[in-house]
Amino acid sequence: MTLPVLALTTGEPAGIGPDLTLMLAASRMPLPGRVVAVGDPDMLAERASQLRLAVDIKVLNPGQVVPDPCAGVLPVWPVALQAQALPGELNPANASYVLATLDRAIEACRRGEAGAMVTAPLHKGVIIDGGHAGFTGHTEYLRDACGVEEVVMMLATRLDTPTGVHDLRVALATTHLPLREVADAITGQGLARVLRILAMDLERYFGIAAPRIAVCGLNPHAGEGGHLGLEELEVIAPTLERLRDEGMQLDGPLPADTLFTPRHLEGVDAVLAMYHDQGLPVLKYAGFGRAANITLGLPIVRTSVDHGTALDLAGTATADTGSLRVALEVAAEMAAGQEMAR
Amino acid sequence: MTLPVLALTTGEPAGIGPDLTLMLAASRMPLPGRVVAVGDPDMLAERASQLRLAVDIKVLNPGQVVPDPCAGVLPVWPVALQAQALPGELNPANASYVLATLDRAIEACRRGEAGAMVTAPLHKGVIIDGGHAGFTGHTEYLRDACGVEEVVMMLATRLDTPTGVHDLRVALATTHLPLREVADAITGQGLARVLRILAMDLERYFGIAAPRIAVCGLNPHAGEGGHLGLEELEVIAPTLERLRDEGMQLDGPLPADTLFTPRHLEGVDAVLAMYHDQGLPVLKYAGFGRAANITLGLPIVRTSVDHGTALDLAGTATADTGSLRVALEVAAEMAAGQEMAR
Repeated sequence: MTLPVLALTTGEPAGIGPDLTLMLAASRMPLPGRVVAVGDPDMLAERASQLRLAVDIKVLNPGQVVPDPCAGVLPVWPVALQAQALPGELNPANASYVLATLDRAIEACRRGEAGAMVTAPLHKGVIIDGGHAGFTGHTEYLRDACGVEEVVMMLATRLDTPTGVHDLRVALATTHLPLREVADAITGQGLARVLRILAMDLERYFGIAAPRIAVCGLNPHAGEGGHLGLEELEVIAPTLERLRDEGMQLDGPLPADTLFTPRHLEGVDAVLAMYHDQGLPVLKYAGFGRAANITLGLPIVRTSVDHGTALDLAGTATADTGSLRVALEVAAEMAAGQEMAR
Repeated sequence: MTLPVLALTTGEPAGIGPDLTLMLAASRMPLPGRVVAVGDPDMLAERASQLRLAVDIKVLNPGQVVPDPCAGVLPVWPVALQAQALPGELNPANASYVLATLDRAIEACRRGEAGAMVTAPLHKGVIIDGGHAGFTGHTEYLRDACGVEEVVMMLATRLDTPTGVHDLRVALATTHLPLREVADAITGQGLARVLRILAMDLERYFGIAAPRIAVCGLNPHAGEGGHLGLEELEVIAPTLERLRDEGMQLDGPLPADTLFTPRHLEGVDAVLAMYHDQGLPVLKYAGFGRAANITLGLPIVRTSVDHGTALDLAGTATADTGSLRVALEVAAEMAAGQEMAR
């Protein structure tokens, strides 16, 4: 069986994306796929020497097969920088470069040249400053580039528990919204769309037929029978009931503060939190440094690290490759699942 | 040194409160204080026989000294039931009984007869049905009974980490509010009041001089510089600045999803979350079955279990005593701290 090609966009060139890419390429721990970096080869070679890493930057020609992983070798699909990139120094002149690496990876996935794309962190502010005023993040950029209406953000980590290894997956019904807008953003239609994408992609990419999803309430104690809010009674419960009638396996709405315990998580394939800070603190606590961000609902596979550009660590070789490794592993798993489903 | 007297209200008699009390009394693992149960002695004796626990129910007369803990003996300050109590069967006729046990314990703490009170779970609905329409929970009842204006809810657990034992404490700026009301409930004045109570009681009860408190933002990513909400810029940050000028040690406002990681928690004595589901899922995940609920701001020490009445488990001897044991341990620690501070 051939390993899937994983197109790794190296992200903001002043951040730790290039560093992490090079550190993994130099590592003796086998990579889970045929990783090909998407970025500027000269910048990568320069960063490797700053980090004192012996990595052979191997530029691939169009159509050239991506080789199997080999410690000390980094295959690259070249995209040229617009301006010099120094660790820690943001330069808006390179905004279009960062977007061009995404375009290259998206194209490769859509053409079947890559089985998945994995994104190192970019810096939203400098992309906007670089003339892309409407830019709001990787996820929305991919959504628009792929021409889909809605995507679902899910974080995943693998836990070693006394009862064995367990995947904890947390998807979000709303993402980057001010807290005061969250309650109104939870609608029956929106929730049904998110749950359908979640269930479909758990099956398509992870091979989970009829996944079981535990759904959080919006309010504390899931509204406590209406005493602490009405959205559970008026919106969430009726929507879940309707989807159960279609055959979906849904628990809830459940109080978020007791849901993340072994008794409630047993047999659950994913948790749907209603908003960002209801689901992600516990996921990131549980999977610290080993969590991957996954975008569901796209026609391609995309995973990402769960951290930012860490400008202060760029060029220092002290950044932690844990999350990027997990993002590559999950991407490889999803690419394989997608192959099998075809 | 004498062990502090811990008045343990046995809570809803149809729930697991009596069971847990008896299970701990029967246990050979030493109790952290001179525990005295507050409840009906006949009900406790009956429950002990249902649970097949050999526990000698020892009714104390007024003024009688509470003896040191002894496995198999349960000292009791008697409060008589109004009606029979069967495991799992709520009876509104006993609502006043439950409140009378609280009154007895509050009185004991105020008179110095007990160093702390620890509450087993009660059932809010049956208290209301029993004719106490305004009842909203233990915490508010204690606040009103003690004549204070504001209390602060804090959960605590003890974690075994690779770097040693670490106390994780999470206090809440708002508690049982519908999510859509949270943003407006966060005011500068309210936040300052909560932080002052938190800092004062961390010093008074836990001996932490000038505690360091990490404060969550309200919005995802703590508002991301105003892109995801303005409360951090307009309310939270200026309040923290003002309190720092008074000498308080405050970190934040910080993104809640990265705050609960070793790097941010190092050296932090407590986290202040802005609302229930921002702080409690991670605390309960981390401290599953070993978390205690603490009410700060009272003139007395009060801790509680972090779970409900579990009516279905009452009478079965399968309930988990972990949280009650931690609640007793924390109460003993706080009672001792209070003594030292006097």
